[in-house]
Amino acid sequence: MRAEIIAVGSELLTSERLDTNSLFLTAELNRIGIRVIHKAVVGDSAEEMTASFRHALETGDVIVSSGGLGPTDDDRTRTTVAQLLGRKLLLNEEILERIQTRFRRYNRPMPEINARQAMVPEGAIILPNPRGTAPGLWLETSAGRIVILLPGVPSELRALFECEVKPRLARVAPSERLFTRELRITGLPESEVEARVSPTYALYPDAEVTILAAPSGIQLHPRIWSKNAPQAEKLLDEMVRQMALPLGEHLVSINGETMEEVIARLLTENRATIAVAESCTGGMLAEHLTNLAGSSNYFLGGVVCYSNQMKTALAGVPASLIEAKGAVSAEVASALADGIRKSAAATIGIGITGIAGPGGGTPEKPVGLVYIGIADEHGMHSHEYRFSAADRDRNRQMATQAALDLVRRHFLFPRPANGR
Amino acid sequence: MRAEIIAVGSELLTSERLDTNSLFLTAELNRIGIRVIHKAVVGDSAEEMTASFRHALETGDVIVSSGGLGPTDDDRTRTTVAQLLGRKLLLNEEILERIQTRFRRYNRPMPEINARQAMVPEGAIILPNPRGTAPGLWLETSAGRIVILLPGVPSELRALFECEVKPRLARVAPSERLFTRELRITGLPESEVEARVSPTYALYPDAEVTILAAPSGIQLHPRIWSKNAPQAEKLLDEMVRQMALPLGEHLVSINGETMEEVIARLLTENRATIAVAESCTGGMLAEHLTNLAGSSNYFLGGVVCYSNQMKTALAGVPASLIEAKGAVSAEVASALADGIRKSAAATIGIGITGIAGPGGGTPEKPVGLVYIGIADEHGMHSHEYRFSAADRDRNRQMATQAALDLVRRHFLFPRPANGR
Repeated sequence: MRAEIIAVGSELLTSERLDTNSLFLTAELNRIGIRVIHKAVVGDSAEEMTASFRHALETGDVIVSSGGLGPTDDDRTRTTVAQLLGRKLLLNEEILERIQTRFRRYNRPMPEINARQAMVPEGAIILPNPRGTAPGLWLETSAGRIVILLPGVPSELRALFECEVKPRLARVAPSERLFTRELRITGLPESEVEARVSPTYALYPDAEVTILAAPSGIQLHPRIWSKNAPQAEKLLDEMVRQMALPLGEHLVSINGETMEEVIARLLTENRATIAVAESCTGGMLAEHLTNLAGSSNYFLGGVVCYSNQMKTALAGVPASLIEAKGAVSAEVASALADGIRKSAAATIGIGITGIAGPGGGTPEKPVGLVYIGIADEHGMHSHEYRFSAADRDRNRQMATQAALDLVRRHFLFPRPANGR
Repeated sequence: MRAEIIAVGSELLTSERLDTNSLFLTAELNRIGIRVIHKAVVGDSAEEMTASFRHALETGDVIVSSGGLGPTDDDRTRTTVAQLLGRKLLLNEEILERIQTRFRRYNRPMPEINARQAMVPEGAIILPNPRGTAPGLWLETSAGRIVILLPGVPSELRALFECEVKPRLARVAPSERLFTRELRITGLPESEVEARVSPTYALYPDAEVTILAAPSGIQLHPRIWSKNAPQAEKLLDEMVRQMALPLGEHLVSINGETMEEVIARLLTENRATIAVAESCTGGMLAEHLTNLAGSSNYFLGGVVCYSNQMKTALAGVPASLIEAKGAVSAEVASALADGIRKSAAATIGIGITGIAGPGGGTPEKPVGLVYIGIADEHGMHSHEYRFSAADRDRNRQMATQAALDLVRRHFLFPRPANGR
């Protein structure tokens, strides 16, 4: 079964807006075995809308549209589709009553214009919308196509799809459906991840893999369409094992778990606490470590010390050390880590110092140079990174990810004692 | 002139990827007077691609596609378009030579498969791609349509559009083009912004306004198509003045300047410095205050103090005060602000304490309750906020925005002395 998605709305043709409803719809349709073969965005023009729906009706078994069901002159989905399918638009008293009730509840008179939302193409099934005035509509054409009209407001669209559309579609959808996995990788560029895992692809010709690059790392999404759930799950498990080997310690999770979730689990399992002292990342590391509920169980505190005085005052870094080695140095990173660990009485301390850019670089200490220190009761050490991003935000994000990864590796791949 | 944008690639039909190239293309096309009337995403199937391009050729004056120009079997844009337009595909020696040179530069032999990228539909103008192997192609149909094929890699697409496509399109584009403004608003929900400014819309029927809601606040983008630049600019200036009135102190900027940029300017103009002590926002405020280059000129430092001990140790909040008033209280917010201001010797101190959720709320102190304190040499005061977001991240973002806004208001709308 093949689906086409049409998003209606002139604001979706500006340079500021994307049709994000289609991501939700695609995930839901795939889950019940329906593939999306085409997506379109059209404005409010009746001519363009007609052309788009006509095109969709030629190739899709299911057409799902979002938007254009409001009460104004610009909302033309109902009339366009009725005309295209040769159906009359009839006033539905039940919908009208529901809309009037809704307005009464908010103590407002129903504007005359809203009555349009009660106009329904002949033969349509009405999908009640508990969150808004525009109901969804389900139509079946003489050629056996299914046309589903949904409102564009994401919360309304989602609720309607979940409660009304999905159960109906599931009854007609094929038994084949989509199975997926989500691998998260850190510390490798997209091209390197691709090079390492692509030999696996040839072994699993039935599977497809999407690679996504985000500031938080690389994600791999292997997926397979199958009628046989146990077989598909087994194949994906095997495939993930094959992909995991060349990724080694860079593999953060195979089940969609985020870096923050992995760290939260490791800290909790080890009854460890953490405190951080950041310079160039400006609070981003603390922000990431506290973005999960319950983080107060392991995160004790952090300091953002931009100036040298603050490095001394807040994290106890000796002024003489900063003078001797420079604020951006391996030694100061370690001292920041150890200083904050002691002042917070934490199990682990992390220190970051570097040059986020775009200014402040020198030939010896260029933009992108970052030192990250980690300290525990046994001692401290630090790592040097040279990030090459041109922009400040990217360098800060990469430094934050590298620091989070140091915490992960601290638990999973402890260094031999003499390495400290 | 009307444009259609087609994005080619099966990965763009998954639930994880959006065609973001179209935002760049739309902005660029609008800037030279070309409106985008339809966007489509198609997979790698020749049948679907043919249908999409045929549809586009029926209604658009300019068709811009991205993707499908690679060397593999799945890259079918060249062949599909050549077939649809009835053109032969010919090997272009110049392109072949360029691709071979590119591989030689990286000391790799050119795989035979890459020769496909040198196949060009008869009559096409070749747009050299300095960043990749696939050149762009420019075709003109007998009916006078312009078809532009670009690679899908964003950096290649952007460079090709800037250098090769834009100057060529500008020669044929109409004199009418798009004029825009960008207003940023803080501290009001989207519906309230809409209610306040929508009466203005009727006064400017030629203008359209897009409203965008982001964690950093609401944005309004009024825009107008016009052949007369001075007239359009004047009309937009007037319209912005009209919209600004009902927004009052909530209006952050009318020229796209971000909250962080406004604060950086105000701090610099006033030769002021700032330090922050955060609890529930976990470093997010410091991160925002340091995300601009040069922030070390005004940002002295920050502390993230989750535990009560850290509030005392890092920001000098008396333990007795926390005991008497509770960690989440107006008094502790003020004490955090004043404590960090003094320890960092800053002009302004900010303190935040609250309950981000989802746990930790009580009937008296529910999730979303946040106190933000601000201190300067004249004293300190604090504000109570009750954010209603269900999710933790949203509450943290709203608290961060509210704190940034307090700094902005401190300079722009100083409180009378007795209000402190």
